[in-house]
Amino acid sequence: MGTIAAGIAAAAAALAAGYGNGLVISHTIDSMARQPQIAGQLRTTMFIGVGLIEAVPILAIVVAFMVMNK
Amino acid sequence: MGTIAAGIAAAAAALAAGYGNGLVISHTIDSMARQPQIAGQLRTTMFIGVGLIEAVPILAIVVAFMVMNK
Amino acid sequence: MGTIAAGIAAAAAALAAGYGNGLVISHTIDSMARQPQIAGQLRTTMFIGVGLIEAVPILAIVVAFMVMNK
Amino acid sequence: MGTIAAGIAAAAAALAAGYGNGLVISHTIDSMARQPQIAGQLRTTMFIGVGLIEAVPILAIVVAFMVMNK
Amino acid sequence: MGTIAAGIAAAAAALAAGYGNGLVISHTIDSMARQPQIAGQLRTTMFIGVGLIEAVPILAIVVAFMVMNK
Amino acid sequence: MGTIAAGIAAAAAALAAGYGNGLVISHTIDSMARQPQIAGQLRTTMFIGVGLIEAVPILAIVVAFMVMNK
Amino acid sequence: MGTIAAGIAAAAAALAAGYGNGLVISHTIDSMARQPQIAGQLRTTMFIGVGLIEAVPILAIVVAFMVMNK
Amino acid sequence: MGTIAAGIAAAAAALAAGYGNGLVISHTIDSMARQPQIAGQLRTTMFIGVGLIEAVPILAIVVAFMVMNK
Amino acid sequence: MGTIAAGIAAAAAALAAGYGNGLVISHTIDSMARQPQIAGQLRTTMFIGVGLIEAVPILAIVVAFMVMNK
Amino acid sequence: MGTIAAGIAAAAAALAAGYGNGLVISHTIDSMARQPQIAGQLRTTMFIGVGLIEAVPILAIVVAFMVMNK
Amino acid sequence: MGTIAAGIAAAAAALAAGYGNGLVISHTIDSMARQPQIAGQLRTTMFIGVGLIEAVPILAIVVAFMVMNK
Amino acid sequence: MGTIAAGIAAAAAALAAGYGNGLVISHTIDSMARQPQIAGQLRTTMFIGVGLIEAVPILAIVVAFMVMNK
Amino acid sequence: MGTIAAGIAAAAAALAAGYGNGLVISHTIDSMARQPQIAGQLRTTMFIGVGLIEAVPILAIVVAFMVMNK
Amino acid sequence: MGTIAAGIAAAAAALAAGYGNGLVISHTIDSMARQPQIAGQLRTTMFIGVGLIEAVPILAIVVAFMVMNK
Repeated sequence: MGTIAAGIAAAAAALAAGYGNGLVISHTIDSMARQPQIAGQLRTTMFIGVGLIEAVPILAIVVAFMVMNK
Repeated sequence: MGTIAAGIAAAAAALAAGYGNGLVISHTIDSMARQPQIAGQLRTTMFIGVGLIEAVPILAIVVAFMVMNK
Repeated sequence: MGTIAAGIAAAAAALAAGYGNGLVISHTIDSMARQPQIAGQLRTTMFIGVGLIEAVPILAIVVAFMVMNK
Repeated sequence: MGTIAAGIAAAAAALAAGYGNGLVISHTIDSMARQPQIAGQLRTTMFIGVGLIEAVPILAIVVAFMVMNK
Repeated sequence: MGTIAAGIAAAAAALAAGYGNGLVISHTIDSMARQPQIAGQLRTTMFIGVGLIEAVPILAIVVAFMVMNK
Repeated sequence: MGTIAAGIAAAAAALAAGYGNGLVISHTIDSMARQPQIAGQLRTTMFIGVGLIEAVPILAIVVAFMVMNK
Repeated sequence: MGTIAAGIAAAAAALAAGYGNGLVISHTIDSMARQPQIAGQLRTTMFIGVGLIEAVPILAIVVAFMVMNK
Repeated sequence: MGTIAAGIAAAAAALAAGYGNGLVISHTIDSMARQPQIAGQLRTTMFIGVGLIEAVPILAIVVAFMVMNK
Repeated sequence: MGTIAAGIAAAAAALAAGYGNGLVISHTIDSMARQPQIAGQLRTTMFIGVGLIEAVPILAIVVAFMVMNK
Repeated sequence: MGTIAAGIAAAAAALAAGYGNGLVISHTIDSMARQPQIAGQLRTTMFIGVGLIEAVPILAIVVAFMVMNK
Repeated sequence: MGTIAAGIAAAAAALAAGYGNGLVISHTIDSMARQPQIAGQLRTTMFIGVGLIEAVPILAIVVAFMVMNK
Repeated sequence: MGTIAAGIAAAAAALAAGYGNGLVISHTIDSMARQPQIAGQLRTTMFIGVGLIEAVPILAIVVAFMVMNK
Repeated sequence: MGTIAAGIAAAAAALAAGYGNGLVISHTIDSMARQPQIAGQLRTTMFIGVGLIEAVPILAIVVAFMVMNK
Repeated sequence: MGTIAAGIAAAAAALAAGYGNGLVISHTIDSMARQPQIAGQLRTTMFIGVGLIEAVPILAIVVAFMVMNK
């Protein structure tokens, strides 16, 4: 049963990171095209945002590794 | 059964954090591009918001760790 | 069976808090960019709103802790 | 079986409160930014609305506590 | 089996009340911001509407209490 | 099996009434804010509409009570 | 098995009537607010429409009563 | 098994008729409010349309009655 | 098993006909209100279209009758 | 098992034909109301399109007939 | 098991062809009404497109025929 | 089990190709109607795009053929 | 069990590639019609993008081949 | 059970990468067509974004390889 749980957790982590990061980065690119003079500031916020978004999916990956052998 | 429950809880935590944070950060970036002069204030609100959003998913991760060994 | 129930309750609590808070905070940031002069008032309402939204998910987390050992 | 039922009821209560409150509070914040001079009246209506919305989810939480031990 | 049925009925009652009330109250707040001079009339209609919406979910909660012990 | 059937029927009745009434009442409030001088006529139509909508969900609740003891 | 079938049929009848009637009545109210001088004609069409919509859900309720005792 | 099949067929017939008729009648009412001088012609088309839409759901109800006793 | 298959086929036939016809007839009524002088031509096309749409659902009903007794 | 497979294939064929044809015919009617002078050409394209769309659903019906007796 | 697999493959082939072709042909008709002078070119592209879209669903039908007898 | 796996893989391949190609070709036709003078260039890009899109579904069909006999 | 896993992985790979490539290529064609003078640059970015998108689905196909014989 | 888990994880990784990358790259191409003079900067951000998005799906692929042999 542990492997199935690991699969579900890893799957959701991938989906969550793909959705959240895709949303943030595509909005960043739209905003950079609309306001090119603050592109650096937007990209900095994007890096912070991507880091914050990936925190919980990485925890879910950790859970996946932990339940894998049970 | 505990590992499956841990997998479900961790999966939903990742999805919730990915969705909520993605929404907040992408709106912050849009707003920064529309009103660059209050970028600092928006980013502060974003940090508070991300912290508030991640409170319950982190609790769900805690639940995942607790049910893992049962 | 209790661990599965705890997993479902914690998962839904995370999703509900992520969705509700994400909605409120992203609208707050949009409104702050549109009306910067009432930013303080908006942020106060946001804090009250986040507190009200998280009341029931926290109860669901409590239910998750209670059914965990049955 | 009772714990599963408690989990489902608590999960739906959290989702319903998160969705309903998120909708009401985000619309309140939008309206406050559009009409700042009636902010007090809007916030009063918001409190009444949140109270009315949380009535049935709280009942569902009560049902969750009642079926937990069966 | 009765507890599962009670859980489903209570869950749907919470979701229905959260969705219906959230819709009505958020539209009321929008309308109050657009037409502040008839705010009282709108709020009266909102109370009647919330009462009408919660009639059937309360019946579903009653069904949940009745099937709980079978 | 009867209790599960009662739970499903009551759940759908609550969802149907919550969705239908929420739609009608929120449109009524929007229309009242747009045309305040025919508010009475709109509210009369709303009452008729709510009555017509709740006819079949009430029948479903009746079905729920009838299958409960089988 | 008959009770489950009765529950499904009654549930779908309630959902169908709630969705269809909610759609028709809310459009009627919108149209009345846009063209108050033909309100009577619109309301007549609404009554005919609600009657036509409820024909098949009532048949489904009849099916629910018929399969209930098998 | 026949009763379950009857329930599914009757349920889908109700949903299909509720969706199709709700769509046609609400568009008819919108069009009548936009072009009141051809209201009769629109209502005639509506009756023909409702008759054509209900043909297959009625057949599904017939199937429901036929499989009920098997 | 044949009755379940008949129920699924009849259910999908009803849904497909309700969706397709509802779409076509509601667009016809919208177009008639926008161009009343070609109403006859539009209604002729509508009849042809409804006939073409119902061809395959009727075949599915035929399949439902054929698998009913197996 | 063959009857269930026949039911699924016939159901999907009906849904696909209903969706595809409904989309094409409703767009044809909209386009005819916008450009009445090329109505014949549009209707010819519509007939070709409906024929092309129904090719694969008819094949699925053929599959349904073939798996019915296995 | 082979018949179920054949049913699933044929069902998805029908849905895919119905969706893809419906999308292409309805856009072709819209474009013909907007630019009648290049109708021939658009219709040629439509035929090529329909042929390309139906390639993989036809392969899925082939798979359905191949797994039917296993 | 192999036939079911083949059915799922072939079904998803058909859906993916139908969705992806339908999207690309319908946008190509829209763009050709908006910019007829670069129709050739658009059609070339469309052919390349369709080829790139069908690469992975064809691989899935290959997987379907390979798991069919296991 | 391995064949089912291979089927799921290949199915999702096809869907992901179909969706992602369809999105990118259709936006490329829209952009080419809006800015024909940078068509080459857009097409180059499209090729890079399609290559990046297909990386993970190809890995999923590899996983499908690897689990096929277990 | 390990192969099923590997299939689910690989499937979700493919979907997440396809969705996230498709979103980012299609927005990049739209933005390049709107602001051709910062195309290089946009493409750089796109490469960083695609790299950040693919981090977690690649981890899920790693999980898939790890659970494959259990």
